Formats: sequence, structure tokens, C-alpha cells
Amino acid sequence: MASETIPVARYEGNGKCRFCVWAPIRNAVELHIVSAQERFITLDRDDRGYYSATATDVHPGDLYFYRLDREEEFPDPASRFQPQGVHGPSQVMSSEYAWKNDAWRGIPLKEYILYELHVGSFTPEGTFDGVEKRVAELRDLGVTALEIMPVAQFPGERNWGYDGVYPFAVQNSYGGPEGLKRLVDACHGAGLAAVLDVVYNHLGPEGSYLSKFGPYFTSRYHTPWGDAVNFDGPYSDEVRRYFIQNALYWLEEFRFDALRLDAIHGILDFSAKPFLEELSSAVHDLRERTNRHIYLIAECDRNDSRVTLPGACGGYGIDAQWNDDFHHALHVLLTSENQGYYADFGSLTHMAKAYREGFVYSGQYSIFRQRSHGIPSTMLTGEQLVVCSQNHDQVGNRLLGDRLTSLVPEDALRLAAGAVILSPFIPLLFMGEEYGEKAPFQYFVSHSDPDLVRAVREGRKMEFEAFRWQGECPDPQSQAIFQTAQLTPSLKEAAPHDKMYAYYRKLIDLRKTVQSLADLDKESMEVTEYEAQNVLVLRRWALDDEVIEILHFSASSSSITLQIPSGTWNTILDSGDPVWGGHGISLDDEFISR
Amino acid sequence: MASETIPVARYEGNGKCRFCVWAPIRNAVELHIVSAQERFITLDRDDRGYYSATATDVHPGDLYFYRLDREEEFPDPASRFQPQGVHGPSQVMSSEYAWKNDAWRGIPLKEYILYELHVGSFTPEGTFDGVEKRVAELRDLGVTALEIMPVAQFPGERNWGYDGVYPFAVQNSYGGPEGLKRLVDACHGAGLAAVLDVVYNHLGPEGSYLSKFGPYFTSRYHTPWGDAVNFDGPYSDEVRRYFIQNALYWLEEFRFDALRLDAIHGILDFSAKPFLEELSSAVHDLRERTNRHIYLIAECDRNDSRVTLPGACGGYGIDAQWNDDFHHALHVLLTSENQGYYADFGSLTHMAKAYREGFVYSGQYSIFRQRSHGIPSTMLTGEQLVVCSQNHDQVGNRLLGDRLTSLVPEDALRLAAGAVILSPFIPLLFMGEEYGEKAPFQYFVSHSDPDLVRAVREGRKMEFEAFRWQGECPDPQSQAIFQTAQLTPSLKEAAPHDKMYAYYRKLIDLRKTVQSLADLDKESMEVTEYEAQNVLVLRRWALDDEVIEILHFSASSSSITLQIPSGTWNTILDSGDPVWGGHGISLDDEFISR
Repeated sequence: MASETIPVARYEGNGKCRFCVWAPIRNAVELHIVSAQERFITLDRDDRGYYSATATDVHPGDLYFYRLDREEEFPDPASRFQPQGVHGPSQVMSSEYAWKNDAWRGIPLKEYILYELHVGSFTPEGTFDGVEKRVAELRDLGVTALEIMPVAQFPGERNWGYDGVYPFAVQNSYGGPEGLKRLVDACHGAGLAAVLDVVYNHLGPEGSYLSKFGPYFTSRYHTPWGDAVNFDGPYSDEVRRYFIQNALYWLEEFRFDALRLDAIHGILDFSAKPFLEELSSAVHDLRERTNRHIYLIAECDRNDSRVTLPGACGGYGIDAQWNDDFHHALHVLLTSENQGYYADFGSLTHMAKAYREGFVYSGQYSIFRQRSHGIPSTMLTGEQLVVCSQNHDQVGNRLLGDRLTSLVPEDALRLAAGAVILSPFIPLLFMGEEYGEKAPFQYFVSHSDPDLVRAVREGRKMEFEAFRWQGECPDPQSQAIFQTAQLTPSLKEAAPHDKMYAYYRKLIDLRKTVQSLADLDKESMEVTEYEAQNVLVLRRWALDDEVIEILHFSASSSSITLQIPSGTWNTILDSGDPVWGGHGISLDDEFISR
Repeated sequence: MASETIPVARYEGNGKCRFCVWAPIRNAVELHIVSAQERFITLDRDDRGYYSATATDVHPGDLYFYRLDREEEFPDPASRFQPQGVHGPSQVMSSEYAWKNDAWRGIPLKEYILYELHVGSFTPEGTFDGVEKRVAELRDLGVTALEIMPVAQFPGERNWGYDGVYPFAVQNSYGGPEGLKRLVDACHGAGLAAVLDVVYNHLGPEGSYLSKFGPYFTSRYHTPWGDAVNFDGPYSDEVRRYFIQNALYWLEEFRFDALRLDAIHGILDFSAKPFLEELSSAVHDLRERTNRHIYLIAECDRNDSRVTLPGACGGYGIDAQWNDDFHHALHVLLTSENQGYYADFGSLTHMAKAYREGFVYSGQYSIFRQRSHGIPSTMLTGEQLVVCSQNHDQVGNRLLGDRLTSLVPEDALRLAAGAVILSPFIPLLFMGEEYGEKAPFQYFVSHSDPDLVRAVREGRKMEFEAFRWQGECPDPQSQAIFQTAQLTPSLKEAAPHDKMYAYYRKLIDLRKTVQSLADLDKESMEVTEYEAQNVLVLRRWALDDEVIEILHFSASSSSITLQIPSGTWNTILDSGDPVWGGHGISLDDEFISR
């Protein structure tokens, strides 16, 4: 086997296409070209179980299956397109695309201001083209990176994306590979980085035929989704290669600037050289080779700083990771909710620690987890941690998918936005929050298997038990649930949304233009808690300027005495200002500290 | 809960005993004192599920069970003694013991020369007292550390020890806790370190009632022994404490100098702060506190240098680990076996790499494992790696438990001994190899459950399939199999064993007295391969001396030209010398290199 075998069909032009599929548990694999001109081509096996052949008179748009052991046939595990959905044939695709913004090299991680969106519900079209039309608007908002929820082909037309079963195929109902390339191209044209959410911890429950080809999964470990992906057992070299090639595919062929790795705590891998380390090496090699700003950002539930430490320090070398503790600390200060994982939060000290260090749980006992949790993140830089006040999970994994807009008053929304955008971390906004969108974002699927639909319904109910939410669990399979998730971006033209939108733009502008806010340096920061007054004060400084951020987590007014360097301080933003929809200015224009 | 809760019954003297047991899944726990005077005492529960009480009029020797939810009763999971075996009551034990060698502080790790023994088969008595009588002899051999195979109470009277089900109870048939203390004391009196093999990756299949008390196990991960020990799920703080207390118990109360951690690759733990890191911290704290030489030595199948790297480098901070690759490389050079995991070895280059670096597989593809294996161990020092030419697993996990003596001629045995003892690593001898013992060491058990006996028989057969050994698989349950494992140490008085024994003594003496052999420094070493001649040459140097080791892996004579520093070199050992049983001296007394 050539160590560079790439198990993805590659159209080479002039009617030639190189087919390659890994099927070590099969004795014979044939390519079944279904159309335009039906025929069977026998593939050759190598010593690692890759089957391949170069076929002629094959053209982009042709459809095919792989026939296994002459008895059954399935779509290509590395299909680039499933025009008829997860159960249909795979389509030969050309990689060609005329990039308009060919000179784009990305932007540094510390400049990332992420905007997470779900293609299906972001616009009425529910397509990449729909999103593309709004790229200019997002640029005007000021965000710098579009984070697109997973687009790997999933069953049906409605799905968050985490049920994808063809990691290389772009969802047909979103507009397929070409639509996605146009969107990425448009982002680059607008100066925005494009980030793709990818799922390497499991495959969806419907339409996954990988196990027919090889040991992609192992029963040695269990995950919430069943058998774990086989990252460390026999044959795991090839399973790893499949996913590493997938990452490179999005970064190279689609020119994504970064990947968001879904729930890496679901990647169960005890090898001496973990898959994630290998993945980050491969991506960093690509970065070196192309001189592009390319990043990996992980979601991880372990509060493990090693995720983002270099290999030499025992880490995976991933560039940044989500810090859910920040969200939870903030959410509970705003809502006083205390069920489920929110039981572990609720004090100003938690929020202060999230600013000072990152992880709130760095070894303390967690009531929710019934065990000690995490290790310190003090050694991580600000740009290694992504924070938010809302995201698809924190909104969508509520019984009714209610956004913060449904939970807290507007002044608390402005506080939340400031706390996130003016933090020394990478901020992430969830589509619509910038104008106070109210549409709930609930969990939705459109599976075709009735047993599965029933199982998903039951699973959702179980998940909500820890939270003891009141009310009926909405039906994930319902078309109506998906409809209610549709955004109404025109809202931002009208009161009170217009003021919220202006406020978000202002915050983002401040983050970009004030040096001490742009610097993501936890060392040039001092966090002071005023417990009795529910006030947190962040002092941040840079070479040329210095700011004080006063976060007041209470509806009633408080008085504090600031301990700040002497000099004259100007108010640059007051979230209570009526111009943003507030009840009144509470700060003077100018302070003099002696 | 006091963070110092110790879930072990502790006799405090004067008829007072503190009972404490962790049973978070139970609503009521009573102490049932069975004898001398039967009664029930209700225990108080704390917020982590520890139940405890101080009982009076209780004395060492009293027997007890814990009664759970007033419906069923079981022995103490942290029983210190099971005088009637795994299913019987637990016994109250006093920790008192009059240590004769109270000033002992241990020896540095680099001075360790390990001698692994199995208490049951090492002497006809099969007890600690039996071993104690032979301590002086072992001191005379020159080994410096006795490594005792596990002694935690197992079912029946015959077992390697890896089926223990009471990690705190010393096997009754071996002589119980007092016998073990006398043995450790005798070791210290003879200047020998005492090392205990402990098993934290599973509990045996018969007589384990831990699950009746709490979630000690988890179905999230599978191990060859069934559900994994719960080191990272809910309640894992308390499970960890149980095992950490166990380690401290052996090191403090029994004064063991080191623990050998069995198969840590079976400890499946994805937490940010792994159990093994916590364990090594606790043990190192004890080392600091007591100023004793205390060590942890791990067996690990992952070829992962992080096991022995400090926490700051992402490691577990364990002091040393077994390097099975050294064994396999050596074994295959000697025997030409190529089945099972031996398929991955066979060249002189493998052996050379084992000397130069440690792990032979440091990322290469392993045919046996069907995946790439390991990471480099170049940064590990010699004293961080334990090597052997035989051990209980490598001998015992053969179909017929045959030792090297049954597989290769005597000159190869002498070569193997030299390769191990004169290596820059910690050497380990397996009981009896020093005089060429021939008794096979086969797998034996004495379970009482017929289904289990059947399962063990089947399991053994399966294990041997990869090796395709010829012949019937011996019955592990048979008393005769155990009998054949009995050593005959008197052999060493008679030819040819006497010469082999003298040779081992000589090797050990050289290792201790020649500085360049005593220094475990891979940097002061040069390894040269003479592929055509099957010769490996190690040059090792220290401040005051320098040695050349010539390892000739061939039965026919070879001629090589040494590239060595100029000067006069004296032959200090020739394994072909008839004085050791060889066929003739092949080296001059003196070499002059120009």
C-alpha cells in the first residue's frame, strides 16, 4: 500500500476517474456505474484492503455504487455527493471550481469573531445560496468568521447536521458541493473566514453503510451514539486516514479556514499517538505548506487543557477549544437556572474564574457529574478558548429551544453580549442573537425509519430529565418544529431589534479597534469581584490604551468604588444608554481617578 | 464528607474499631459482627455515600459482614483478611507489627535488579514463610528487589494472583497479612527491596461483590475481563480513592518499596486528570513525606513514553515501565518463533533499537496489531524501562508454559542472561531462571464455579489461537498443572545448573561493580549492528571505566572487526568459558586496539 492512498473517488478529467475504497473485510469489490452508462468494473485490492481502479469514459454527474462480494451494493463511504440522499447512488464529482478570491490566505485566530449558523434555518431558502446572499450583511455586522453547522449528507432534509453519514458528501438539499464552494468563496470575498463543523466522533443512525465495508466502529467503547469509531484498534490506521483525509478535503478543496471538531470527548482513543494529535499534525503541515491561516477548534467536555497544548507537552496541538464553563457561569448569573449542569454554577466567583483562567471546573467536585472535573487552564492563552452566551447546543438542547431573548430582559441580553464580545477570548455568536431573534431553535430531524423516529423522540425526553423542564417535549420529526426555527432577519430593521443590532455592531467595533480589547492576553488583565453588589470589573491594558469593563449582574442599582489607576477615564460604552434600548445612562462621560 | 475518608476498617486498639465502607447505591448499611459476639450495628451515611461507625468491644480476629438494605450481606470490599476465602466473612485486623528492620529506607531505582516470584509455586510450602526462608539465598544471588506476584485474596488456593477480588486482603493460603509483613521485613533485613504486583485494571471473576456496594465498574468500556473499573464516570472520585488507598496501604502498612501496576492499558480513563496521574502524585507525596525510596512501575502495552513522563509533559509520572519489546526482540532472535506478537520481531535491528531507544515499535505498523503502534521512547532514561528474557506472562502465556530452558540451548540462555543483566535498563529475572529451572509455569486457577471454570478453559484456548501452537491446551483448573510449576531450587547445586547459577551471580556482580554497567545511561552507550554476522556490540562508558559487550546471536562462529577506542582491553567475561558451562573460550584475555 502506498502510504498516500486516498480512499476517495477522484475525477482526473478527460473521462478518467480514479476510484478507491477501503473494504478490508470484503473479498471482492466492484464498481457499479449506474448511469449514464451502466457497467461493472472489478477493483484491485492492495495489502491494506484498499480496492481501486482507474475507470475511463466516466464523467462528472455519473452515478455509482460499490458492489461487495458480488452480493450487495452500497453508496461510496467517501461519496462526494449523494444527489438522491443517503440511500441512493453516489455521484462522480469534479474538483474543479473557478475561485474568485484566489489570493485569500485567512485571518489570524485572535481576530476570529465567530458567527454560528445552520444553513437550513438561516434563510427561507435553507441553502448555501441563501446564506451567500447574506454574507455582506454579516460582514457589516463585523463578525469575521462564519461557522457553518455540519453539512455532511444526512437523512432527509431537516437536521442539525450531527446525523451526517457521508463525511465527504455535501448535503444535497443545501445545494451540494458547488453551492458550498460558492459560499466559502463569497465569505473570502467579504473578508470572512469560513469554518466548518465536522463530526468525527460518530456517524448518524440512518443511511450509514460504513460497517459493510470495514471495521470503522468498535464495540470496545460505548458512546451515546452506540459503538465508538475505531480510532485505536486493529485497522485503525485506515479509519484514521479516512477522517484525516476528510479534514484535509474541506481545508484544501473547499478552502475552509478552520474546522470545528464536534465533541471530541466522543473520540475514544487510548493509543500512544492519539488520532487527534495525528489530525492536528496533518492540518498544521498543510498550514506550513500553504502558508494559510488554518485552524482546528475543538468542542470538548473534559475541561482538559491538554487538548490545546502542543504534543511536546502531552497535548493534541489543537488550536482552540470551546469553554462551555464560561457559558454556564454567565447563563446562570443571568437566569438563575439551577437544573442539570447548571447546578454546578451560580456564583460571581465562577464567572470571575472563567475570565481569569478559562475553565471554572479545574479539579473541583461537580454535583452534576458526581465526580471531580477538569484540570487548570491557566496556561492557555485567550485565543485558545472560544466563549459564547448562546450556541446551537445551549439553545437547542433546551426543552423548547428557547433563546436568551425568551428568558431574560433586554438589558441582560446586552450584558451577555458585552460579557462575551469584550472578553479576552474568541467570541461566538449564534445566528440571530445580534438583533434579538426570538425564533426557538429546537431539535429537528427527518428520518425515514419509524423505529428510529420513535427512538429519537424517547432519547430527547430522557435527555431533558435532569433539567426537570415543564411541558411536553416537542416532536423532533415534525416539520413545524423546523419551521419555527426560521430566522426573521428583517426584524433588525425595526424597534427594539434595531437598537440591539446597533449595540452588537458597536461592541464588535470596539473589540476590533481598542487595542486592549483586541489583545487576547489574560496576563494584561485584572478581574475584581464585588460580590455584594454583583459586579465584576475587568481591567485590561495594552501598550496604547487601557479599559475598564464593569459587568453588573443585577436588576437593581449598585454602587462600587473602583480601584483603578489614576488619570482621566472616558466612558466609551454604556449598555444602559437609550440609544441601545437601555433605561438610562448610569455612568458619567468622564471619570477622574486620583 | 471529609476528603480524608478512608474506606477501610481500622482497629484502633482497646476493643475499638472504626468501620467505614462506601455504598452510595444503598439506603442502609449495617455492620454484622458474626463472631466472637454476634450483633448488628447501624452505620451512618455521609454525603458521598460512605457508611461508618466506631464499634466497641470488637477485637482483632472478629469476623464480620456488611448487611445492605437489610436484605443481603457481603464481605467488606476493603477487607484486610478473608480467613475463610472470598465468600466468607472479613476479619478485623490490627495493623500492629514489630518491624525488625525499622531503619530501612529502600534503595534507588537504578540499583533495582528485580526477581519476580510466585508465592504459591516458589517453595513447596507455597507461603510467605516459605519464601522468607530463601531470602538469604536471593541476596547471595545478588538481586536487589523481590517482585511478588499479586497476593490480593483470590478464589481457592491456586492462582497466579490476577483473579484477586479483595485488593486489601492478603491471600489466606499464603499466610495472610502477618506472613506478608514478616516476608517484607526479612527482605529489608537482607538489603532487598520488596515490590508488590497490584491489579487495578479489573477484579477477578469469582467472589467480587463490589458491585453490590457501588458503581465500581462501568459498561461504557469493555476490557478482556468485562466491564471496566469506573475511573472516570459518576462516583469515580470514590473508586479512585479506594485504589489509591490500596496503593498507600501496601506502601505504608506493609512497607513495600515499590508497586508493579498490572496492565495499566486496561485502566480505561478519559478524564482530564487521569487516575494514574493522581495515583503517582499520592505515592510521590508519600515518598517526600517519608524520605523513603518508593516507586511505581507499570506494565503497559501501549508503547507510550508518557506513562513515565512527568505530569508537566503530559505524563502520568510513573517511575518506570516494562518494555516488552525488548523481550520480544530478544526472544525471536533466540528462538526464531514468528507466531502471535512475535510476528512483529526477528531482526537484529529490532534488538539494536531496543538498546538504543527502548520501544522497538515507536509508530511503525505492527502486523500483529494490524495498526501502527507506539511513540518514541528516546527521551526515557534506562532506569525508566524494565527488561527481561522471561517473566510470568512470557513463560506462562505459552501453551505449555515452557521456559527458555526448554526452547533454546544453554549458550543461548547465557546470551539471554547477559543481554538482560548487562543492559542499561532495570533487569528482571523470573524465579528459577538463574539456575536454568525447567519446571513449566502454566496458567492455573482453582475457581469453585463450574461455569467459570469452563469459561476460563475456553478463554485460554482462544488466547492461543494466534500462536497456532500444537497440542492440547492444559486444563488451568487442574491441580497437577499447578504442581508442575513447583521449582526445584536444589538443582542449582548440581551440574549443569550450578554453572548457570554461578554465571548469573557473576553477571549481577559485574553489573554492580563495573561503573559503566551500573550507570543506566543510554547516552553513554553506542550500539553497533553487524547484520551479516548476527552480532550486536554495545560500547558503554563511565568516568572510570569502559566496556564492550559483544552479543552473538548465532550458533556458528563469526568474525567481526571492532571499531573501538585505542588502548588495551581486558576480557572480563566470556559466556563460552567452560567455567560457565560453555563450549570454549572464544576471546583472548587481552585486546590491544590501535
